[in-house]
Amino acid sequence: MDKKYMARALELAALGEGAVNPNPLVGAVVVKNGKIIGEGYHKKYGGPHAEVFALESAGKEAEGADIYVTLEPCSHYGKTPPCAKKIIEMGIKRCIVASLDPNPLVSGRGIKMLQDAGIEVIVGVMEKEAKELNRVFMKYIIEKKSYLFLKCGITLDGKIATRTGNSKWITNELAREKVQKLRNKYLGIMVGINTVLKDDPSLTARIENGRDPYRIVIDPNLEIPLESKIVNFQDGKSIVITSKENENEAKVSILKEKGVNVQYLEGKEFKVSDILKKTGELGIDGILLEGGSYLISKAFEERVIDGGEIFIAPKILGDEKAISFIKGFSFENIADGFQLENVKINTYGNNVAMEFYK
Amino acid sequence: MDKKYMARALELAALGEGAVNPNPLVGAVVVKNGKIIGEGYHKKYGGPHAEVFALESAGKEAEGADIYVTLEPCSHYGKTPPCAKKIIEMGIKRCIVASLDPNPLVSGRGIKMLQDAGIEVIVGVMEKEAKELNRVFMKYIIEKKSYLFLKCGITLDGKIATRTGNSKWITNELAREKVQKLRNKYLGIMVGINTVLKDDPSLTARIENGRDPYRIVIDPNLEIPLESKIVNFQDGKSIVITSKENENEAKVSILKEKGVNVQYLEGKEFKVSDILKKTGELGIDGILLEGGSYLISKAFEERVIDGGEIFIAPKILGDEKAISFIKGFSFENIADGFQLENVKINTYGNNVAMEFYK
Repeated sequence: MDKKYMARALELAALGEGAVNPNPLVGAVVVKNGKIIGEGYHKKYGGPHAEVFALESAGKEAEGADIYVTLEPCSHYGKTPPCAKKIIEMGIKRCIVASLDPNPLVSGRGIKMLQDAGIEVIVGVMEKEAKELNRVFMKYIIEKKSYLFLKCGITLDGKIATRTGNSKWITNELAREKVQKLRNKYLGIMVGINTVLKDDPSLTARIENGRDPYRIVIDPNLEIPLESKIVNFQDGKSIVITSKENENEAKVSILKEKGVNVQYLEGKEFKVSDILKKTGELGIDGILLEGGSYLISKAFEERVIDGGEIFIAPKILGDEKAISFIKGFSFENIADGFQLENVKINTYGNNVAMEFYK
Repeated sequence: MDKKYMARALELAALGEGAVNPNPLVGAVVVKNGKIIGEGYHKKYGGPHAEVFALESAGKEAEGADIYVTLEPCSHYGKTPPCAKKIIEMGIKRCIVASLDPNPLVSGRGIKMLQDAGIEVIVGVMEKEAKELNRVFMKYIIEKKSYLFLKCGITLDGKIATRTGNSKWITNELAREKVQKLRNKYLGIMVGINTVLKDDPSLTARIENGRDPYRIVIDPNLEIPLESKIVNFQDGKSIVITSKENENEAKVSILKEKGVNVQYLEGKEFKVSDILKKTGELGIDGILLEGGSYLISKAFEERVIDGGEIFIAPKILGDEKAISFIKGFSFENIADGFQLENVKINTYGNNVAMEFYK
């Protein structure tokens, strides 16, 4: 019974995907006498919370009803008044929560506020599903680092481009459509400078009513061409992370004039975990890592990939000099290699993908 | 209506898989007044044909009934009397056939024999499915060459072994179970000499009531160790194909004493198509190609792979020196690479496979 309504609340929560970051996805359902009398979800960053929509759609009927919420109702005045207060005011009798707020500073406070007001609270219904839905938020709030999701499209022999750099197209249209959805889901997209030099990508999310992600280029030597697409969006969403050792002030000035956000890290060989810390500081909760080979390999080496989806096309290059999506390792035994965990197989016509999570 | 009974006949035909080669898989259903009154399939090489089983299970009721057969009834005296004759004798009124006999010498003769006896004959119901079921037979009968089916298990980056040759295990148990089924399905398994030298495989089909396949080793320089498992089965099912230029008569003698069938081809770099011709002459209708890299690459180069199933595990080696399942090619554009056709995606737990056909 509880599970049915929570499943609906999770379904609603998912509708906010791509529009609420770095806020969590939240859904809520108000139930009375076995009937849903109100529904809501967090629709937009800065907008009203799920509980508000659900309670308002229920109206006065909410009195004596149950509310199912996928995340602990907030207890503090932020961009909106606390939802726990609203739940109390509307006369809710029972509150069923999937997962607690991961923020250690506030976790449990919403629950306590409700209980203090005499509301029965049940926590943990479909908790696993709720946490999975908010993987990005959960990591970001606790670690203050961006969540890293790998996307790459490979041939059956693991190549992302031919020896001459040709990479169009490996995957099919269905797979590329899914990539557009991923670009909409994550607040940022990250690529290495070689990808920019080779492909000059625009890294936009070509999806209806979608939101363009922040474009993050890892460019220690500040090699990015001033005429590259990423530099010329003029929307303040292009970020270049370069080395503090660079003294090309002139180029930095031009980039800044073009609205590019230039960020610095120590040294010339950045650790991916430092990059994720930096982007976390910039408020980017999750990043889609799109390549290239060097950055992906570094991320695997540091074991900082939180999840990913690797698309495989029924194509074969059979060329040792074609570009592999990952390189530079040396393992003696199969068991020593990288093993993807919690794998889910997704089919896209004649392409297939392995989706995985840490 | 017709399709429903033919679908059942095809289902029956498939039950003979692994037991009838190099005969075709055939199923038959006898139908009277909208009711199935007899069923049969070709169960075993040399045994009675599908029609015989179906007609005998129908008994006298077969008079005036319809028979659905997946392959044109035979018209000649072979290991058994002609099925067309039996159909006529039993008083069948209508005969529905999925596909004609592919053998140009007899194709259409069974149909004619039936028609001459006044039986109404319909040809082509579910013809595509029937031909797909007998892909091996169709090629073998027409070209007199073994059908070649590739099986390999790879990491996400296309490797079949680490740089030190370790390959156990890449794929999971579910995938390996499927491989056992493939080994039972094809009359022969083929590997290159390097695979024998490295892994000393036994290449048996570990399947209940299964039949061990012929083990074919491509060994131009006759390097096969006399103590290798394949050499010591003493069942006459191990075949070594070596070069005519070899003059190691002593080793050949010992191999023959051990019951190994030594076959010869010209030169030292065999064409895979010549190998398939040779194995076809030996009566092997279909071969499962299990590796290694060299033989697989040659087969791709010659474009003689008729079908295959490539199993992908969620593992990554990221090592340029690990062994790729295919190598030696050089393509400038993605579009120039090998493209698998008629791809079907099969899931085996966290492993996935691409099944494909020419």
